[in-house]
Amino acid sequence: MSEHAYEFDRATAIDEGGRGRLHDGWDINGNANGGYLLALAGNGLRAVAGRVDPISVTAHYLAPGKPGDVVVDARVVKQGKRFTTVAGSMTAGDRTLLQLVGTFGELPRTSVATSPYMAGGPPELPPIDECVARTATGPVPTPFMNRLDVRLRPTDVGFLTGDKSGVAETAGWLAFADGRPIDTLSLLLVADAFPPAVFNLDLDAGWVPTVEMTVHVRAVPAPGPVRCLFRTRFVSGEMFEEDGEVWDSVGTLVALSRQLALLPR
Amino acid sequence: MSEHAYEFDRATAIDEGGRGRLHDGWDINGNANGGYLLALAGNGLRAVAGRVDPISVTAHYLAPGKPGDVVVDARVVKQGKRFTTVAGSMTAGDRTLLQLVGTFGELPRTSVATSPYMAGGPPELPPIDECVARTATGPVPTPFMNRLDVRLRPTDVGFLTGDKSGVAETAGWLAFADGRPIDTLSLLLVADAFPPAVFNLDLDAGWVPTVEMTVHVRAVPAPGPVRCLFRTRFVSGEMFEEDGEVWDSVGTLVALSRQLALLPR
Repeated sequence: MSEHAYEFDRATAIDEGGRGRLHDGWDINGNANGGYLLALAGNGLRAVAGRVDPISVTAHYLAPGKPGDVVVDARVVKQGKRFTTVAGSMTAGDRTLLQLVGTFGELPRTSVATSPYMAGGPPELPPIDECVARTATGPVPTPFMNRLDVRLRPTDVGFLTGDKSGVAETAGWLAFADGRPIDTLSLLLVADAFPPAVFNLDLDAGWVPTVEMTVHVRAVPAPGPVRCLFRTRFVSGEMFEEDGEVWDSVGTLVALSRQLALLPR
Repeated sequence: MSEHAYEFDRATAIDEGGRGRLHDGWDINGNANGGYLLALAGNGLRAVAGRVDPISVTAHYLAPGKPGDVVVDARVVKQGKRFTTVAGSMTAGDRTLLQLVGTFGELPRTSVATSPYMAGGPPELPPIDECVARTATGPVPTPFMNRLDVRLRPTDVGFLTGDKSGVAETAGWLAFADGRPIDTLSLLLVADAFPPAVFNLDLDAGWVPTVEMTVHVRAVPAPGPVRCLFRTRFVSGEMFEEDGEVWDSVGTLVALSRQLALLPR
């Protein structure tokens, strides 16, 4: 797996037998980031699908990921003219980490900003240099953040400074730290790469495990950093949703995400 | 299966072998409604899970449903203290209709309107009597609508009258036509029971097949009709998302849904 020039490609490599390895350094306080897990598993699913772009991928998160060997076991459930759907799991030994279903296809290779209907656009963000770099330090260690260059909207960093906004949003810019271009596979990572939006609420929410996450990839990103907005609207029943939007550098919507997560009891 | 007093229960009955039957009359122009398919399959999944409430259920829609026998084949992939996750499919003969993964649990039996954070509330709707009954007639026959009592917000019925609003929303009240209470299983039906929000756009979108739908059930509905809002924000790449919110009669959020659907090419 050493032929890959970029960290993300090494960390998401899957061989012909569906074998891969959860790499160290993509974690938050010892547990692999959920977006990294989804990208690694998604790479296994798309190899089985034989189509390059994830269109809609859902994972249920069943156990935390630790560095070590994993197997992505998937099978085609429908091969259509436009899409191929696969179902499977990612396991570490006898533990199932993720249970998955995904539909894959081929999107146009250049993003198209025109659309018959867009009720909204990219989030308004200050220039990258005026945003706040998210580092690997904070309330808990986030080594994962060394892999990425995340620049948060200044109004959303109160969870780090103790001055929470009271609004469940985090927005900002994202690129890979090593310059890897953002492709459709890596959008599965991006979908869970920001600090949880609920961190800016006055809740005691240090760890908010994901139950389920679905990512829709809508276009191939143009080169350059992406702009992201994550928002929680409803916290109830010890659960909340977090909705993500990812927009590329030319203003095309490239992904929507939604996850269901839990508050600590 | 004749012991059930209500149509929905007869139409979603599953025996111990996972066998059920797609009933006639739950279709739109001959194809079973997607929410009905999800509720039928969901009933099979929850029997395997052994927990009453769907928490998050995802289906990929692989083939249209026609009246006849189906089998829901599912297995437990994780049984935890709080939730049980199952994966499986619903097939008709050798055709897979839906590929599924779902997490089930037990929600509190009464809905609780208090929450630490709600950035929004139920849609503003006129009283039921001032909304417009959605009938089985329209641009295409929708026999499915005879099973439900759907009352649309007057501003959202332009797709029927030729005066489209240009805003991709449909909202209104929903109850079962035969008075069956709305429980958590039937929220899977509700999530796809309204006319597509894009019908109110100036697009030639008579049939908009669902690729994938995910429903999060957040609370057990209180008695009475539910208030629903379905909205599409982004139509691009021949695809769009439709996001649904379902609120019960006392103002508690009971479900969120999102589907990815296709525009005709």
